[in-house]
Amino acid sequence: MLQNFWRERKPVTNYANNESTFIFNTLTIIGIGLIGSSLARALKSKPGLVKQIIASDSNKENLAKALELGIADSTCENINDAVSNSDCVILCTPIGTYETIVKKIAHSLPAGCVLSDVGSVKAEPIENIVQYLPSNVHLVPGHPIAGTEKSGPEAGFASLFEGRYWLLTPLENADREAVFKMRRLCEGIGAMVEEMDINYHDKVLAITSHLPHLIAYTIVGTADDLEDQTQADVIRFSASGFRDFTRIAGSNPIMWRDVFLNNREAVLEMLQRFSEDLTLLQRAIRWGEGDVLEALFTRTRDIRRGVIDARQDVPPSPDDTK
Amino acid sequence: MLQNFWRERKPVTNYANNESTFIFNTLTIIGIGLIGSSLARALKSKPGLVKQIIASDSNKENLAKALELGIADSTCENINDAVSNSDCVILCTPIGTYETIVKKIAHSLPAGCVLSDVGSVKAEPIENIVQYLPSNVHLVPGHPIAGTEKSGPEAGFASLFEGRYWLLTPLENADREAVFKMRRLCEGIGAMVEEMDINYHDKVLAITSHLPHLIAYTIVGTADDLEDQTQADVIRFSASGFRDFTRIAGSNPIMWRDVFLNNREAVLEMLQRFSEDLTLLQRAIRWGEGDVLEALFTRTRDIRRGVIDARQDVPPSPDDTK
Repeated sequence: MLQNFWRERKPVTNYANNESTFIFNTLTIIGIGLIGSSLARALKSKPGLVKQIIASDSNKENLAKALELGIADSTCENINDAVSNSDCVILCTPIGTYETIVKKIAHSLPAGCVLSDVGSVKAEPIENIVQYLPSNVHLVPGHPIAGTEKSGPEAGFASLFEGRYWLLTPLENADREAVFKMRRLCEGIGAMVEEMDINYHDKVLAITSHLPHLIAYTIVGTADDLEDQTQADVIRFSASGFRDFTRIAGSNPIMWRDVFLNNREAVLEMLQRFSEDLTLLQRAIRWGEGDVLEALFTRTRDIRRGVIDARQDVPPSPDDTK
Repeated sequence: MLQNFWRERKPVTNYANNESTFIFNTLTIIGIGLIGSSLARALKSKPGLVKQIIASDSNKENLAKALELGIADSTCENINDAVSNSDCVILCTPIGTYETIVKKIAHSLPAGCVLSDVGSVKAEPIENIVQYLPSNVHLVPGHPIAGTEKSGPEAGFASLFEGRYWLLTPLENADREAVFKMRRLCEGIGAMVEEMDINYHDKVLAITSHLPHLIAYTIVGTADDLEDQTQADVIRFSASGFRDFTRIAGSNPIMWRDVFLNNREAVLEMLQRFSEDLTLLQRAIRWGEGDVLEALFTRTRDIRRGVIDARQDVPPSPDDTK
């Protein structure tokens, strides 16, 4: 089957000699959901970064929508055709699909091609795919810290990454030129790029993202188990805190299932710490220890101030588009 | 000391014979923080609801600010003077202050005066104060399901209650005319009023508000215990979920301490359910049970849709002011 891919492959362009000022000539986005379609829109809104964008997706409706919205120059159902003439391929699918996809496309990727992704967990998923990649394909794992709870190509918007962090977690032997290209690409669409150790990334994200989502899903599930009338009232009176949790718990189920399955150790460690802290508060409530509660509630205000100072307090919105 | 209060009391106006169309002639707001100042602003923005507003606060700076902002007609440091000529008094202070305040003002309240509050817990705090009230003072406990994480008189805004629920939890022997007046007042500033059993209120709020706040405070505290570099990165990369928790955990510490101390049983019950559900997910992550995770993450989406359908998905903002 792999031989077919070789026969189908188009001649490799020598990008080094290409006088184009584009960072990439042909960038293929695999998975045209919220992040993939936002990336396509962002690149379209900044001409000069890439020459053309190909969208590939296992869902034909998504591809049709991408063309209709004009966010890709072309679409390609056959994933191998899609990547075979690309100098950059970015995986924007749930982490659980990486291995299947990369196993399939590995030998269709042209020499010198940069392969990146946008997944929220890096170590395990990247370790799983690196074995399939030819040495002349440059892997630069990435993760934009941006998103909304919505899913699908219609949910994307061009300004999603503006002023947001885009973390790159290159492996030790990474091609520096490829990392530099990815940095330029992300910065070109307004993101702030940081390079980070791949394991450290997963630890930080476990507390900033994965645990908050797990907790939000849990509390919304707890509410869902209440008797019908109470549940209806929980929804009606959700403005008092619960609302924010429902928003987080409205995120893509498959994507989040894969996150937890792939960042098990870090999530379980943070969850253990959280549970201990929660038990302490539970005890303080039971025994009426107001000073314990007040001390924590005062301490946490400083973290909030830090978030505001870092200008990360406002969620992205399609309305930000200038 | 109580005799002093009697001597200081002004003649009681017979509101029943007053031809004014105002719901209340003199409404005193005790505690001019986020909710108190928003209530004052909302009433000021709808002339015809109350004739004059008196602000009282133990913090002199808050009173000066209230006058400067023009949100009260007068301010009064002496709380007994403030209420002695009022036909409506609304407590907008932390729940833990209720008993002290009501014990102090009980005999300065004119006959026929309506006493209300805006606290997030009702049963225990109301039970604590009801014993001090003369039978000719009409207690109508209330709770607007609206707020932001900010505190203080500057943080308030006139549109805070527009399109939001304002729950009233009158006791069985409540004066229906007083309840009706409070309903008209709240509806007059754009709120949707619902009457609710006082114990049921505390149960619903335990899951919609108190538990989410407790969890948010906990996870932000857990992050605060991480080593310095990690903590700095948690703040920088907070946009991926953690941000929403820091917002909730930036709320007034004293107010929230009092909430947990006063709704102990309901909070502990919901916390117990939550912990069991979280343990189930923890186990699913440990054993790689993707189907358990996916099933929950899919189920919780329906609740989110319910919140959106109930139009409670957008937080209030000062920008809403028309």
